Amino acid sequence: LSQVRVEVVTIGDELLDGSIVDTNSALIAQKLLGLGLEVWRMTSIGDEPHAIRSALQEVAGRSRVALVTGGLGPTEDDRTAQAAAEAFGCPLFLHQPSLDRIRELFQSSGLEMTPNNERQAWVPGGSEVIPNPMGTAPGFALERGQCLLVFLPGVPRELERMLEETVLSMVARRLEPQGSVVSRTLKVFGLTEAKMGQMVAGALDGIPQASLASLPRYPENRLKVTARSADPRQALQALDEAERRLRERVGRWVYGLDGDELESVVQALLRRQGNRLAVAESCTGGLVAHRLTEVPGCSDVLEWAVVAYSLRAKEALLGVSREILEGPGPVSAQTAQAMARGAMARSGASVGLATTGIAGPGGGSQETPVGTVFLGLAHGSRAWSRRFQFRGGRGNVKTIAATVALDWLRQYLLGGDPEAYGAPWR
Amino acid sequence: LSQVRVEVVTIGDELLDGSIVDTNSALIAQKLLGLGLEVWRMTSIGDEPHAIRSALQEVAGRSRVALVTGGLGPTEDDRTAQAAAEAFGCPLFLHQPSLDRIRELFQSSGLEMTPNNERQAWVPGGSEVIPNPMGTAPGFALERGQCLLVFLPGVPRELERMLEETVLSMVARRLEPQGSVVSRTLKVFGLTEAKMGQMVAGALDGIPQASLASLPRYPENRLKVTARSADPRQALQALDEAERRLRERVGRWVYGLDGDELESVVQALLRRQGNRLAVAESCTGGLVAHRLTEVPGCSDVLEWAVVAYSLRAKEALLGVSREILEGPGPVSAQTAQAMARGAMARSGASVGLATTGIAGPGGGSQETPVGTVFLGLAHGSRAWSRRFQFRGGRGNVKTIAATVALDWLRQYLLGGDPEAYGAPWR
Repeated sequence: LSQVRVEVVTIGDELLDGSIVDTNSALIAQKLLGLGLEVWRMTSIGDEPHAIRSALQEVAGRSRVALVTGGLGPTEDDRTAQAAAEAFGCPLFLHQPSLDRIRELFQSSGLEMTPNNERQAWVPGGSEVIPNPMGTAPGFALERGQCLLVFLPGVPRELERMLEETVLSMVARRLEPQGSVVSRTLKVFGLTEAKMGQMVAGALDGIPQASLASLPRYPENRLKVTARSADPRQALQALDEAERRLRERVGRWVYGLDGDELESVVQALLRRQGNRLAVAESCTGGLVAHRLTEVPGCSDVLEWAVVAYSLRAKEALLGVSREILEGPGPVSAQTAQAMARGAMARSGASVGLATTGIAGPGGGSQETPVGTVFLGLAHGSRAWSRRFQFRGGRGNVKTIAATVALDWLRQYLLGGDPEAYGAPWR
Repeated sequence: LSQVRVEVVTIGDELLDGSIVDTNSALIAQKLLGLGLEVWRMTSIGDEPHAIRSALQEVAGRSRVALVTGGLGPTEDDRTAQAAAEAFGCPLFLHQPSLDRIRELFQSSGLEMTPNNERQAWVPGGSEVIPNPMGTAPGFALERGQCLLVFLPGVPRELERMLEETVLSMVARRLEPQGSVVSRTLKVFGLTEAKMGQMVAGALDGIPQASLASLPRYPENRLKVTARSADPRQALQALDEAERRLRERVGRWVYGLDGDELESVVQALLRRQGNRLAVAESCTGGLVAHRLTEVPGCSDVLEWAVVAYSLRAKEALLGVSREILEGPGPVSAQTAQAMARGAMARSGASVGLATTGIAGPGGGSQETPVGTVFLGLAHGSRAWSRRFQFRGGRGNVKTIAATVALDWLRQYLLGGDPEAYGAPWR
């Protein structure tokens, strides 16, 4: 692995006052890792010119590559280009091709061009301009001593495209990194982090190329294995061996790898088995359907979904009986089962999944406090339900209830007993 | 405003390799701003002990307060406490009350305690322990020279609670910050950033206490005004005056302030007018319903929602006719209107809102390429539809279609003509 120092600097008052979360640093780090480069430090600073100048000078003095994002927009508080010009003594010049492109962009979109958009075509003298196919602000690269400084806009979509199209190969050409870094993430649901840590402790002993990180991503916990070697084949072998050993320890809790999401795994299982799903949501309010429909191809396996908050909707859309709604009540095992059965029967799907509960903050009672959720599942002539007690605010109860619902369905489709399902949130 | 240097350090290999996005720095910055303290720099480093030690020593030498998160977990890659002990020469000791509390927590939850959980009760000598009411890892605070270093767990829920209950008052006591910083965000939808920048340029001239930041948050653009003054009343007056001037410039594009979301604004309008809504979603797949149900009290205004991907579901759940589905087709103005009418009529709601389109990546055609979305609106005996062409991947098309649908409804409820509605994404 290359020991080259690479750092990321993100610029903007909106980062330092917490108005926005910096997602760019993580994006850049992921892309660089694909080149075998590890980021050594990430720094966020504000729009104040002095702060920008001194951060850029620090970075140029200690690192080989610095990726700098933000402050290239059209507004008055965008000062990165000017600060870079001052920090390195290379006054701004008007880059005519960039100005032409900005003009064209406005013409073709029918939007009005404003004078501030012109500012974006000024870049520090001696820099190489980096095209921005998705926006008006070009990027630019400057060399100072040992360091290549690459300046990119802070808009994530533009940044990502520019990294892929220009910047990564520019960095690779400069550094010719040796060796290979590969990684794989095992996605785990249903174990606490400490429990998982105990189960996998020492699992990678004797594989010096591989290292393991535990990534809690509530409500999941992930295990990320990274393998490094000068020989790419050896790195991959170490990765495979590490995965094999980890699966020995936590196998049945792993729902997928890398890009897998619970919803894509559920979709694949439904498709493979020729099942079609109908969803009836009360407390999750459409989140189960939203998550399932994030995965392309969803229309093959999702017959329909309904969000039935009111008693009237539960009766009219799902056929839940008056007796159940007035007896055990809308937040009950009986209602959850009846919703799942109704969704399945009325849609013609083969499987029905339902949620009903108290997401809060209001609506709780002694018997069913805020966070109480009943899940219902129906398949053919059978139906089941499970009761859960979740914690946290409304958004959290929706999130975890939807996640547990998807995992309950996943485990059922894999042959599990729906009534034996347990998760650490009971 | 206090010129005290405050910085944030976040620790974890998972930050540097891009596995997770650092949301803690923004959370801390927001909380500190409430005390009148601005963060000066944010730094992320990995779990490597040498990197942690040197970053902590740098910070102790240049800042008055440093909030450090991460690396206090129970696993082997959690090394912050040990590195702090080494950096400042104060060996770890076992904090018995913390160990007792960890034991209790495991007992009461019925989870198994693992030996690694014990590690979390060891803190550097001379530090003040900070209770963690939501988890097993206590925090701790250390003084070194001019600097107060506060170490907190990286789990956001735990961090937030500890900041609020202990850390913010600890920091305030130490610094006694002078003056007041107040801010307000105007949430704008329907203008590009450059256009908005042009409209507000110079708006705050003559209010030296106030500053303005433009925050693009695709598909929105926000305007954040911050006012600073030693006199809290004066800061508030400057803020009010700045808001008044900005509304003069962009008034009709502002949908809300600060914590307002499009969905909460829509909910409030529906409630005030005594309207109840039914939603029929095809391409947005439940996202409109999910967003509306994120806001407490939604059951007062949302009659029901259906996700009707298939032709069968559009017919059976919403009564869209065969003629329409086979003539103009499921992605058409007629279907969007019929879905909205059907949702309204079948649910008994007073207003119906519908989406149908091609979210992609498959399913596009010459006439209706990927990104084509028709929205439908029904109210009483009238119905309308609008066609949009959005860009980007499946997730983006869902997001922007749901946002435009909510904004279209908002503007209609405020008296706008649904057929005159325009947004910059046509």
